[in-house]
Amino acid sequence: MNNTLTRAQVEQLVRASLSRQAGASVSSAPSPLVVNSSARHCHLSPAAVETLFGKGHTLTPMKSLYMDGQYAAKETVTLIGPRSRVISNLRILGPCRDLNQVELAYTDSISLGFDIPVRNSGDIAGTPGCMLMGPAGFLEMEEGVIRAAPHVHMHPKDAEYYGVENKSYMKLRVGGELGVTFDRIFVRVDPAFKLEVHIDTDEANACGLGKGVQCELIK
Amino acid sequence: MNNTLTRAQVEQLVRASLSRQAGASVSSAPSPLVVNSSARHCHLSPAAVETLFGKGHTLTPMKSLYMDGQYAAKETVTLIGPRSRVISNLRILGPCRDLNQVELAYTDSISLGFDIPVRNSGDIAGTPGCMLMGPAGFLEMEEGVIRAAPHVHMHPKDAEYYGVENKSYMKLRVGGELGVTFDRIFVRVDPAFKLEVHIDTDEANACGLGKGVQCELIK
Repeated sequence: MNNTLTRAQVEQLVRASLSRQAGASVSSAPSPLVVNSSARHCHLSPAAVETLFGKGHTLTPMKSLYMDGQYAAKETVTLIGPRSRVISNLRILGPCRDLNQVELAYTDSISLGFDIPVRNSGDIAGTPGCMLMGPAGFLEMEEGVIRAAPHVHMHPKDAEYYGVENKSYMKLRVGGELGVTFDRIFVRVDPAFKLEVHIDTDEANACGLGKGVQCELIK
Repeated sequence: MNNTLTRAQVEQLVRASLSRQAGASVSSAPSPLVVNSSARHCHLSPAAVETLFGKGHTLTPMKSLYMDGQYAAKETVTLIGPRSRVISNLRILGPCRDLNQVELAYTDSISLGFDIPVRNSGDIAGTPGCMLMGPAGFLEMEEGVIRAAPHVHMHPKDAEYYGVENKSYMKLRVGGELGVTFDRIFVRVDPAFKLEVHIDTDEANACGLGKGVQCELIK
């Protein structure tokens, strides 16, 4: 066992600590830190919406999400899993995309009786499929059921502030009486993004999010 | 903003890092680290068992738990929440205790429709109650429904090894593709205990426990 630290390691520790202090106390952060939990939902293509809701049907925005232009649609579907177990009222998020993707929490996949992999959104090759049922028809998805990896959307100015790059990883420290740090928050940088961390309902329940707990994003 | 670290802070960082290295690499740890997730369950008094299962009834051990003498009983009860929603087949853990306590995950409490506090086992004053139903009768619990705080049981020799005291807090770092650190693991030291971390099903699902991920206990 090596019981000593190199000078480089000590410097790294000090830098990391200073960076944490900075994250917590500097008021010049370009954006407020918003952490939201995503309940299970799906993204659909325009063709899939027509299959499920009828020819010519388009999504009806019901509630705007924090990210500009994104919304929860009025429309929901029924998900039928591989063992004929069902999740009703699966919310569709709009606008439509060019692929069909269902995002579940691990608890959901247990209740459906199958295993789902942790994936970044859009990376669905080789993932399990499912059947979706709408008022006008069924859609058989060959693949696309995932547990979304925890991630943070940010504008390039946020990325500059935190000193991170697109597709790198950060940590999210959640305070409160439970106290959970998510060590692998995938970073997605785009000029269209507002600073927002997305975790799923399992992760939110595990850390007690939403009860006034403090959150801190750490490089 | 204070952009410097004191010598004491630097020393603390170095000590903490060395301690982490030691935890990961030294083979002289007195006990293997076992991390288990506790599904929802209850602990009952002998009188409660009689109320629910009939006069003179005692629990029948079905499966031994990791902690010596503890077991999952053959008997289960039905939990009826404050809004008449129900959880069936709630497992009883034995042996009997001198209080009645129901431990649920936060997901369970959401499905039942009420809020439950995070508490250490036994600390049930002022917590919500519920109704339990068994084959021989009902038991009205005035209080005792909790979400158990994540905790670690350990023998005094483990406490000495990790340099922690009874009722202090440690961290549990869970590796793998998700990567979650539980920052407040409550320490319970007793000569009767084997080294075992208990997290609940929400926490286990959030960190992907049980898929061969590495766990590390850190002071």
